[in-house]
Amino acid sequence: MKKISYIDDWETWKNSFSFSITVPVRFSETDMFGHMNNVTAFIYFEQARIDYLKAKGLFAEDGNWDAFPVVADLQCDFLQQIYFDEKITIHVKTADVGNSSLDIHYMATKENGDVCLTGRGALVYIDAKTHKATAIPEEMKRKLLE
Amino acid sequence: MKKISYIDDWETWKNSFSFSITVPVRFSETDMFGHMNNVTAFIYFEQARIDYLKAKGLFAEDGNWDAFPVVADLQCDFLQQIYFDEKITIHVKTADVGNSSLDIHYMATKENGDVCLTGRGALVYIDAKTHKATAIPEEMKRKLLE
Amino acid sequence: MKKISYIDDWETWKNSFSFSITVPVRFSETDMFGHMNNVTAFIYFEQARIDYLKAKGLFAEDGNWDAFPVVADLQCDFLQQIYFDEKITIHVKTADVGNSSLDIHYMATKENGDVCLTGRGALVYIDAKTHKATAIPEEMKRKLLE
Amino acid sequence: MKKISYIDDWETWKNSFSFSITVPVRFSETDMFGHMNNVTAFIYFEQARIDYLKAKGLFAEDGNWDAFPVVADLQCDFLQQIYFDEKITIHVKTADVGNSSLDIHYMATKENGDVCLTGRGALVYIDAKTHKATAIPEEMKRKLLE
Repeated sequence: MKKISYIDDWETWKNSFSFSITVPVRFSETDMFGHMNNVTAFIYFEQARIDYLKAKGLFAEDGNWDAFPVVADLQCDFLQQIYFDEKITIHVKTADVGNSSLDIHYMATKENGDVCLTGRGALVYIDAKTHKATAIPEEMKRKLLE
Repeated sequence: MKKISYIDDWETWKNSFSFSITVPVRFSETDMFGHMNNVTAFIYFEQARIDYLKAKGLFAEDGNWDAFPVVADLQCDFLQQIYFDEKITIHVKTADVGNSSLDIHYMATKENGDVCLTGRGALVYIDAKTHKATAIPEEMKRKLLE
Repeated sequence: MKKISYIDDWETWKNSFSFSITVPVRFSETDMFGHMNNVTAFIYFEQARIDYLKAKGLFAEDGNWDAFPVVADLQCDFLQQIYFDEKITIHVKTADVGNSSLDIHYMATKENGDVCLTGRGALVYIDAKTHKATAIPEEMKRKLLE
Repeated sequence: MKKISYIDDWETWKNSFSFSITVPVRFSETDMFGHMNNVTAFIYFEQARIDYLKAKGLFAEDGNWDAFPVVADLQCDFLQQIYFDEKITIHVKTADVGNSSLDIHYMATKENGDVCLTGRGALVYIDAKTHKATAIPEEMKRKLLE
């Protein structure tokens, strides 16, 4: 098992997730190497992240925000090949919350429990008027960490 | 050569296009059958259609429209397999303009000139306020048919 | 209601489907016009078609075919705008089976039952060795029409 | 300017690229937030990486490899919003070559020269028969670093 910079202890990390979604790998998401195209991992991460934020009441779909989270960076480690029609479960959690940004972690597992992808990415909370980073409200921090 | 409903005479039709764009087939646009995924054809059609409308001054990117074209339907005939890294030229033309809608035709060719895709689709001109079909301005009709 | 060439009687057609899958519209499947991008319809059609063929035992995932179905054409009518996070149900059926090809019909509905997309497309059954159209086995025809 | 872990000195890094491709942002690559969807960055990185490897004679399209590079991880920092129809230039270079893996860096710039994306990712060289990491041939190392 290679060392991944954002994972301290593998077993602790694996067991720290409580939210997940499951998606089947679509035929159009494969590529000519016969497996799920690497880009697809980030489609799943986005879907899982938004569903997670929605479940916490932090994703306003109607676009009427005073402030909203923007992706600052994203990364993914590809641990196992993934194939057409596999059912992949993407787990999401908030790993850290700062003043105006938060760190989201991702873990994707196969039906047999194998971890096939891990990832992380920062979101920055942006003021809708100034387009600058702004403090995450305490209420939002509380929801993210609960 | 199979009969395609929107093509009367093949040679006449083939020679009736004057606008085109060329795109390379991306690796992420292939699928596990080893060729370009069928969905990709519609990505190319959209890109070619918008570039065509832009070239005619009919695609307002800033979103400040009184009225704008909406896709009413789309179809594609797959005549030849397409593979990774092929350079595909997508030709676009206005086949017909009605009161509030127009019919766009598509033809995709390979570097050797072979036609690999044909297609068509109607656009309906929608009033931005009422969201109902509205008459295409005469100036726009003129540009489309010139 | 506009006339759609592949639908004879709307009510009869609507009630003729017995297989469907349901998918949520992903954020990455929207576009800057604020709705589901048109290309996405064909992603859903492909997923629904393959799940349908699999359910009938007619999609061999391992690639060991003597013959396999290839998409000959595809078309989609866009009846209603579709938005992020809507749950769309895509219904699929075999409308017709010929000697070496079959016609698949699609109908997508919203949670309130509104039909937002209709479509169709032919599949041609191709011999894996000769790459030419070949007769659809009687057993397969039977499964498709049951 | 935020600190990016894989960039030591910004100016030195920016000037270290010699290969690039330019792509227009497609309408289908935007999302309802009105900008290029984050996932699209990885589509561009893949296209640029493959074109780069091809230019060095290291991407065998026909699939007849003894060994081939597999993506081990990918990351992207989003420095500026990107919009429909912008022409984005993606620069690629080999930052480091180990025994069986290499580190690829990415930088995307706008037409005005602004850096809008940076990224990196490791490729592992895999033996086609054993599916295990294998030594990168000296000839390949030389080409990558020249």
